Parts: sequence; C-alpha cells; structure tokens
Amino acid sequence: MSTVDLEELVRGKIKSLKAYHVENFDCEVKLHANENPFPTPAKLLHDFQASFQSLQLNRYPDPDCHLLKTAISDVNNIAEESLVIGNGSDELIQLILQIFCDAGESYSFPDPTFGMYSIIGKGMGLLPHPFSLDERWDFRAENYLKFLDEKNARVVFFSYPNNPTGNCYSESEIKKVIENFRGIVVLDEAYFDFAGKTFCQAIEEHNNLIVLRSLSKIGLAGLRVGYGMAHPFIIEQLNKVRLPYNSNTISQQFAALLLKNFEPVREQISMILAERDRLVLGLSELDFLTVFPSDSNFILFRVQDDGDKLFEKLMKNGILVRNLSAHPLLKNCLRVTGGTAKENDHFLAILGKIREHSN
Amino acid sequence: MSTVDLEELVRGKIKSLKAYHVENFDCEVKLHANENPFPTPAKLLHDFQASFQSLQLNRYPDPDCHLLKTAISDVNNIAEESLVIGNGSDELIQLILQIFCDAGESYSFPDPTFGMYSIIGKGMGLLPHPFSLDERWDFRAENYLKFLDEKNARVVFFSYPNNPTGNCYSESEIKKVIENFRGIVVLDEAYFDFAGKTFCQAIEEHNNLIVLRSLSKIGLAGLRVGYGMAHPFIIEQLNKVRLPYNSNTISQQFAALLLKNFEPVREQISMILAERDRLVLGLSELDFLTVFPSDSNFILFRVQDDGDKLFEKLMKNGILVRNLSAHPLLKNCLRVTGGTAKENDHFLAILGKIREHSN
Repeated sequence: MSTVDLEELVRGKIKSLKAYHVENFDCEVKLHANENPFPTPAKLLHDFQASFQSLQLNRYPDPDCHLLKTAISDVNNIAEESLVIGNGSDELIQLILQIFCDAGESYSFPDPTFGMYSIIGKGMGLLPHPFSLDERWDFRAENYLKFLDEKNARVVFFSYPNNPTGNCYSESEIKKVIENFRGIVVLDEAYFDFAGKTFCQAIEEHNNLIVLRSLSKIGLAGLRVGYGMAHPFIIEQLNKVRLPYNSNTISQQFAALLLKNFEPVREQISMILAERDRLVLGLSELDFLTVFPSDSNFILFRVQDDGDKLFEKLMKNGILVRNLSAHPLLKNCLRVTGGTAKENDHFLAILGKIREHSN
Repeated sequence: MSTVDLEELVRGKIKSLKAYHVENFDCEVKLHANENPFPTPAKLLHDFQASFQSLQLNRYPDPDCHLLKTAISDVNNIAEESLVIGNGSDELIQLILQIFCDAGESYSFPDPTFGMYSIIGKGMGLLPHPFSLDERWDFRAENYLKFLDEKNARVVFFSYPNNPTGNCYSESEIKKVIENFRGIVVLDEAYFDFAGKTFCQAIEEHNNLIVLRSLSKIGLAGLRVGYGMAHPFIIEQLNKVRLPYNSNTISQQFAALLLKNFEPVREQISMILAERDRLVLGLSELDFLTVFPSDSNFILFRVQDDGDKLFEKLMKNGILVRNLSAHPLLKNCLRVTGGTAKENDHFLAILGKIREHSN
C-alpha cells in the first residue's frame, strides 16, 4: 500500500480547470450540437462498406494520410504539403498553441466564441485573452490590433462564421488583422460549408495564416476529421508534435470517400440552409425573442425573460438546444441547430405553445 | 501580401525536434511495427457490419465512451470511474505529462525503450531523463530511485514488457519503485496480451499508479484505441485535458465488440506466441547474431557485424524490420515482429541466404 498526495502532484494549470461539459441529455430532438441532422448518404455508406474488407485494421494507419490529403487537395486546390490532418480540428487548435506558445504566454480570440479556444490553452498553462465583440457581433481591426499588442498575444483565433453568434465577421477587418498582426492568425472555418466564404486561398500570400476546416458539421461528426491549411513551414512544425497515428484508418478512408463524392452532401447542405432560413423566419415571428442573423447551420436568439427557464421547458418537451446564458454577453441566449423540416416544425410549435402557456 | 518571421515565432522546444519518423517503405513482408499479422476475425467484421447502419456518424461520438468502458470494465474487473479512453495510448502519455508536469520539469524512463516517451515530452518543453538499463535489460530499484530523486522526476514510464528489448523488468524492482517513488508511475502494458503479466489490480492499493493498455498490438492498430486505468482522481484530471471527442464512434464500437468477443483474438495471440517461439529458435541457430529473450510479439537481436547493412539487405529482399542501430545501447540491433508462419519462414530463409552469401 502506498499513497501519495495527488492534489499536490497535479499542476496548478489543471487544478482550476473544469472538464468540458457536453450536454448529453437523452432528448428525442437534438438541436444542440450543430450536427448535420441527416443520416449518411446511402451511396457513401455503400462505397465505404465495399472498401471495408481491404482496410487492414490490424495495420497502423497511414501516418501521412495520403489518400485523404489528395482528396482535400483536389477539393480546395491546395498543395498536399500545405495540409495537416487532425483528429477533429480541436486537436489542431492544441497543436497550433503548442508550437507557437510557451507556458505563461498569451493568445486571443473575439468573444463570445467557441469554448474550446479558451479551455485548450488553459490546460496548457497559457493565457487566453478574450476580446469583446460589439453589438453586431463584429469588431474593428484597429482596436483589436491594439489589444493584441497590449496583451502580447502570439496567436489569434477567428471562428468564421462565429460559433455561437452565427455571423461572419467583416472580411475587411479580418484582412487587416492578417496583414498587420505579427503573430499567427487562425481562421477556423468549421462552418465554411454553410457560409461559402473562405480565406483558404490567402495562405499563399500570408505565411502567418492557418485555415482550419472540419467534416463534423456536414455529416461526419462521429469520425473526427479536421484539417488545417497553411504555409509548408507551419505544417512541418505541426507534424513534429502531431502524434504520428492521430488519424485512424477508417476516418481517413471515409472522409476521402465523402470528399470525392460530395454531391449527396451538397444536397443535404442545401436542405439545411433552406430549413435554417425557414427557422429564422419562424423565430422572427415570435415576439418574445430576438433572432440574430446566421451564416451557418445554427441560429442564436435572445429571450426577453428567462433563457434558463425556456431551455428547461424545451428539454421537458424533448428538445435539446444549447443554453448560453452563463456567458455575460449572452444573457438569456439560446442556440438552436437547424434540424430536419419535421424537427424544426416541432421546435417552432413547442416554442409557440410554451409562449401561449406563459401568457 | 504579409510575411512574418516564422522561424522566430516557433518556440525553442519545437525547433530542436524532429518529426517522429515512421518507416513506411513499401515492403511485402512487414515485420517492423509489432502489429498483429492476422486479418480481423471474420465474426468480428460481421458483427461490426451488422451494427454499422445504426452508428449515426452524423452525430458526435459518446464523449464518455460508455459502451467501450463497460466492455473494458468487464474484462479487467476495474470500475468505470477508474478508466479513461485514448486515441491510442500515445495520447494518454501526453495527457499524463500535461497533468503532472509544467514546462521545464523532469520525467524519466529506463532506456532503451519506446521512443514516444521522450519525443512527446520534449514537444511539451519537458525534460526527459533516460536511465540506462543493465546488460540483461533490467534495473535495480535502489539505483533508479536515487536517480529519480536526483533528477526531480515527477513521472516515470515503464514499458512492460519493454519495447524494443522484449522482456518484462523484474516485478520486485517495479514494485519497489511504485511503493517508494513520490511521483506518478506509469506501467505501459501495450504488450500485455503476450506477456500475461500486469499491475492493473495494484491501482487499488497505489494511488500513484497508472496502467496503460492498447488494442493496437492485438488487431486494431488501424483504429487507435488505448486506455488507462488509475485512481478516479487521476482519471478526473485526465478528463479535464482530454479533448471531449478524442475517441471516435467507430473505434469505440469496434473495440467494444472485440473485447466482448475475444475468443478469436485469443486464438490469434496463441498463434503469434507459438510462432514467436519458433522464430526465437530459428534465430538462435544462426551463429552471427545474439537473440534476446522475449515476453512479447517481437524479438530483439544483435548482429555480429553491421546491423545497418543487414537491415538494408533484408529490405532489398522485401522484408521490413526495425533498425535500432542508432541507439548507443542498441548498436547493430534489429527488432523483428513475429509474423505469420509463412512470413517467419521467409524471413529465416532470407537471413540464412544473406549469411551464406557474405561468407
């Protein structure tokens, strides 16, 4: 029998952290995680199953992810040497911070935004500096550049479109940051497929730019595939700290098949966007909430009275959305992911009913 | 157009690193990566394919890996709260170092051993302190404890059995380290299924012990599934820094199925062990090399003359083994993974031929 003082052994940067809480309530209608509500296209499943026997799961994955990189390279017209594959883009956020920051150093992001930017860095002993967005969820480059300078930030993350506000920041302001910031600018384009706006071609002109993408929002959340595009020198550094087998064989294969046969996914994206617009319209007709514009597959809205209460009521009715009320800039705000037509109808009907009841 | 000085932006801990080099030559016979040479058992493939349609790849994976943890819990008789799942055990090595070390702090491992212990920590700005093994590839706890104390090591890694030497260290010496070291002791039992020796039940008595396991050596290298067993307090800390969706849906499902239907895998392990013994015997009959005892699915041997040359010659004959000659304690040493009977016959025949030719 031996006992050490574990509390004392754990480092300070970890002690103050909480584990990232994933809302995983057993609700019938899941509109909380910005996933694609449609099942994997039949053709894709079929093609995958046909290739399955040949995958040799007893062998380690291709550490260079060659097949997947070829597919990404073709889709984005980016050279393979400018690509890195992550086990989700979460992992790439971590690797970027690892390369460009030592413990105690600073990085930044406009706020509110994707929670992992802050959580990941804190766990590494880094200092995140959120920069408050204005009331249009946008920012002025001049002010932000001053802030970055004051904080000695080495890396800045832009979620584009921004999760959870839904909008794309002004292109001109982002450009100014890329051009004038002396550190690394990360454009996290996880929701690119819904906005259609990208900075990926700009990596050729700006060696401090990294563009991240994800397949999680367009149908492969379960398989954890993200990728990064940047100057080959940055890719080389990322490969030094990337665990050599971070991307597994099946995810590589499945993602490559999806990118090579994108048409059914494109159709799903069209349906998601049409449904989102319908959802925005439906929400706008409700007088007790304010809807923010969306360039993405989710919508942020603010409730006049108690956001927590509405969240609970929705859950009691079998609908899970994302409750963001805890954030000081997002008081009484909820985020809803566009679901199928049926799910959206159900959501709007329940919202109406809740409202009626509370009148 | 903007250009920053990337060389200057990259942190010192990264600059000196090289990317982990994976030997990935296109050889017909792959005896270099300690993989299971047999294809995935048919029943397992069948069961997986039957469940495949229900996996909902458009949804994020279960962040708690409940199904897989239940299977692991049943196999090892360990409570679920003592379990953590990794994207390979590589990832868990990283998380352990992150929790218990700040930049500039020290950790250790007997040497030679698994290269990732050193590489992962260096990339995090930590100081690895290798402790040289004796000529039987073993160590005396008394000396090692003194060394750990001198170096202020906070974590120690034991590869058990040790890759690449193949043996298990003396149980009594490991026990002494667990009992007397005031930091964290990691028993990396990636090759447990071949040695049958484990410290996993000892986690109940020793709160500083973490036992790692992997499914990579017994048939699922392509799917990246490792797990850790430790005191629930340690698991809680690991969950704080673990990316919430580090383990994907398919890997969780496949690994759970494998553990619940282990019989065909057990049969493969028996065959691998029988073949390994035959391979040891065959190698022992060759007068130009020394074979080290193996408790694992691979064998280390030292060539009398030039190890590099033998490695090259084997490769020219379509056989890939692992060349370890670059390590000062492993001069002229190669490591061969036990393959199928046919592969092993071929390997021994080619070795004999090469020898004849050089006489």
